[in-house]
Amino acid sequence: MQARDLQTDGKGRLKHFLCIEGLPRALLLDILDAAESFAGVGERAVKKVPLMRGKTIANLFFEASTRTRTTFELAAKRLSADVLNLNIQASSTSKGESLLDTLRTLEAMHCDMFVVRHGMSGAAHLIASHVADEVRVINAGDGRHEHPTQALLDCFTIRRATGAWAERGSSSLVIAIVGDVLHSRVARSDIHAFNTLGVGELRVVGPKTLLPNAVETLGVHVFHDPEAGLCDADVIIMLRLQNERMQGALLPSALEYFKTYGLTPARLLRAKPDVVVMHPGPINRGVEIDSAVADGSQSLILEQVRYGIAVRMAVMSMAMGSLPRTRPPRSMRDD
Amino acid sequence: MQARDLQTDGKGRLKHFLCIEGLPRALLLDILDAAESFAGVGERAVKKVPLMRGKTIANLFFEASTRTRTTFELAAKRLSADVLNLNIQASSTSKGESLLDTLRTLEAMHCDMFVVRHGMSGAAHLIASHVADEVRVINAGDGRHEHPTQALLDCFTIRRATGAWAERGSSSLVIAIVGDVLHSRVARSDIHAFNTLGVGELRVVGPKTLLPNAVETLGVHVFHDPEAGLCDADVIIMLRLQNERMQGALLPSALEYFKTYGLTPARLLRAKPDVVVMHPGPINRGVEIDSAVADGSQSLILEQVRYGIAVRMAVMSMAMGSLPRTRPPRSMRDD
Amino acid sequence: MQARDLQTDGKGRLKHFLCIEGLPRALLLDILDAAESFAGVGERAVKKVPLMRGKTIANLFFEASTRTRTTFELAAKRLSADVLNLNIQASSTSKGESLLDTLRTLEAMHCDMFVVRHGMSGAAHLIASHVADEVRVINAGDGRHEHPTQALLDCFTIRRATGAWAERGSSSLVIAIVGDVLHSRVARSDIHAFNTLGVGELRVVGPKTLLPNAVETLGVHVFHDPEAGLCDADVIIMLRLQNERMQGALLPSALEYFKTYGLTPARLLRAKPDVVVMHPGPINRGVEIDSAVADGSQSLILEQVRYGIAVRMAVMSMAMGSLPRTRPPRSMRDD
Repeated sequence: MQARDLQTDGKGRLKHFLCIEGLPRALLLDILDAAESFAGVGERAVKKVPLMRGKTIANLFFEASTRTRTTFELAAKRLSADVLNLNIQASSTSKGESLLDTLRTLEAMHCDMFVVRHGMSGAAHLIASHVADEVRVINAGDGRHEHPTQALLDCFTIRRATGAWAERGSSSLVIAIVGDVLHSRVARSDIHAFNTLGVGELRVVGPKTLLPNAVETLGVHVFHDPEAGLCDADVIIMLRLQNERMQGALLPSALEYFKTYGLTPARLLRAKPDVVVMHPGPINRGVEIDSAVADGSQSLILEQVRYGIAVRMAVMSMAMGSLPRTRPPRSMRDD
Repeated sequence: MQARDLQTDGKGRLKHFLCIEGLPRALLLDILDAAESFAGVGERAVKKVPLMRGKTIANLFFEASTRTRTTFELAAKRLSADVLNLNIQASSTSKGESLLDTLRTLEAMHCDMFVVRHGMSGAAHLIASHVADEVRVINAGDGRHEHPTQALLDCFTIRRATGAWAERGSSSLVIAIVGDVLHSRVARSDIHAFNTLGVGELRVVGPKTLLPNAVETLGVHVFHDPEAGLCDADVIIMLRLQNERMQGALLPSALEYFKTYGLTPARLLRAKPDVVVMHPGPINRGVEIDSAVADGSQSLILEQVRYGIAVRMAVMSMAMGSLPRTRPPRSMRDD
Repeated sequence: MQARDLQTDGKGRLKHFLCIEGLPRALLLDILDAAESFAGVGERAVKKVPLMRGKTIANLFFEASTRTRTTFELAAKRLSADVLNLNIQASSTSKGESLLDTLRTLEAMHCDMFVVRHGMSGAAHLIASHVADEVRVINAGDGRHEHPTQALLDCFTIRRATGAWAERGSSSLVIAIVGDVLHSRVARSDIHAFNTLGVGELRVVGPKTLLPNAVETLGVHVFHDPEAGLCDADVIIMLRLQNERMQGALLPSALEYFKTYGLTPARLLRAKPDVVVMHPGPINRGVEIDSAVADGSQSLILEQVRYGIAVRMAVMSMAMGSLPRTRPPRSMRDD
């Protein structure tokens, strides 16, 4: 997919944000540092900065998502941008207009940025490879491929909680990602991010039916036994179990899954005493996580949501060139 | 439900706005006075004040409502707040996320205020009793329980039209609420508001099947005969007859209802000559009200809509502490 | 319909924008000139002007339309107005509230402008004839009647591309409108606009089944043969073929239509060498237009979208009186 070429400009600055794979470590750290500066905005009485005032951001959600769309919408509004929420199902694509014609139309309306969620892996890349030079594309989740802003907010949350990657050094943390890695774009993005930033040990934990073939080649240790997989972990990331997996060929039942892999207080004792627990949400209580853990003192699940807005503000303003540099002169395509 | 404890802070200032029942008279009058100061904003060339700039307000409408949602959205925008409209049916609750998890997630996004409409009585109270200390909850209608901003705009409209409660004195007005009191949260809130503010006589008028059992205990006089119930009334509030009541067990037919209880010009003559007519809308012409009355000179139906925005601006800014006092320092929950 | 009386005030200034028919030439040129001043706003880093700050614009779309609604929403936001998007199907009209009651309610909320799309011809006129004196109505398409902002953006695009009407002189251009004129409100508005501004020759080209009876009386030359109709044309406007026409009584098939009337590179050679090609969108590739033409160097289809926002900003700000004159004092209807 040549994501690297698409994601940065000639000087290595962020242009589109499509996937973690291939992004250089220094750039990931730059985004985390920028997010740090936005983390306080949500705490202020006036939760707004004028960095993207007068910009138009179009949320193109081909898959329904209240949570992710809302965080992108809030991030855009707190950057003072104008936001268009486009219900793609109801739009001209139902009149037979092609995706690229829809994009060209939105470009002609001088949209500055597309935030794209699509069920097809590679959709954001496809769009980024066709948009005009001055338009920016942010991937808000494409098929089973990547969900890169989620991975970044996971890194940010871990950094805030543990001090990892704070001094730009590597980390000796043991991180365990538990559950349905096979169908999870969050897991794929997390694995790339943690390996790029550097960790002590990165583990995936789950039944064979929910782990990709040859997942070891991604640079992870594989555990099918949760007791072993959680042993001495510093960070546990629980993945959501999709309803459609809970019955049928891949799993016997939700209850069975919870018995074996669900994160309970007892199972949590296998990890380090100061372990932190994360989950991309929405959580299935009693399926992949026990309420006592989800609501417990070691849970960072709400911190992830909170930092998600700061991280998205950082990605959006850096891609737009609003943050560390002045925006390059717009290429006058047609005038 | 201990609404009083939830609704005010330790110093008696408005915190959440959940129901009229239990609110002290002085606070109701304070809100009406504040609404007075906002009533002119809609008349200005620039219909905006910066009182809630940089605040995020989430409209959580579990029941569809264009009219009420629109007035809250406009009130928020005219206070310069950012507004999120959340379609709850389409949200993560359909993925099995619990209501409280949805709320926690929105809180983590630093939403400052939830405007809630829900089919279940007590929903707004439930939410208010679980939100973080710095978050505010406004009830936009819960089941058959209350619709408190509607009652306040009714009071405001009556005060503007008749001078009642203007000098903070009581009123000698005769107010008649006519129709389906049984299913009306508007009626319940109105009854509490008028009794708290003080009226000469408060009547409910309707067939037995549409009045609650022991409605007299709420402090009203009951009339089944509309001619008697409207006699010498100063204010008539007609209630909307829901379509589902018009056929079946409770009522013979819409036409029959109109014949007996519909407000016609002839029936209006029973009231005082300067009687005013109100209705929470949307009206059913020819069912509970004749068009000649709805569009007539004594009708205040559109004034109610107009003042509804001013009243909601008052409630929102007072609850947020933007109006008469500076906002208390945000408790730093987790940093 | 006495559109002229509705559309301008006593001094000939734009009040509502309902149809092209009957608008004086000087006013059309004034709007085009105003649009010229807005055309650069979309190119700026901050794409906003404060002309309608604090105004409330309600998009009332009784027919679904992502493209047109989005351009009006963007135009409003770039004028700094607050925008309400009302999903009319889901609103109180489904509770039996009449259209006029809905309008009265929105007026009472101090909406300044209604942008209306409706399936019934004359709907915008009906609304404009009933709104309060200070409210403005813009027609975003009514039945088969008119789509006047589309016609203006077509004129603006032609003026920019050819220099026509630039010096306020007439034009000697040959313009051919090709396709389903019968069902096209765009075609009707275009015909009125081009005839008012002055053209060398205005042609409609299509099969008899897709042309209105006695269309010649509108001041056009009729061609059934596309080769003759396109001969020496300066401007070709292709109309969208609605899916529902492609099968059944009016047309044998989409393929047959493309063979006879579809704009192909070969057929384009019949026109002048510097002909420009336009289409209101969304296009049906391979039905009314070949992709090589739609994406070719002579296509202005995306320019139309781009200028559509500038033209709508011009119409909205002129109707509101924000542009060349100060707003007249609001008549105090009820206070």
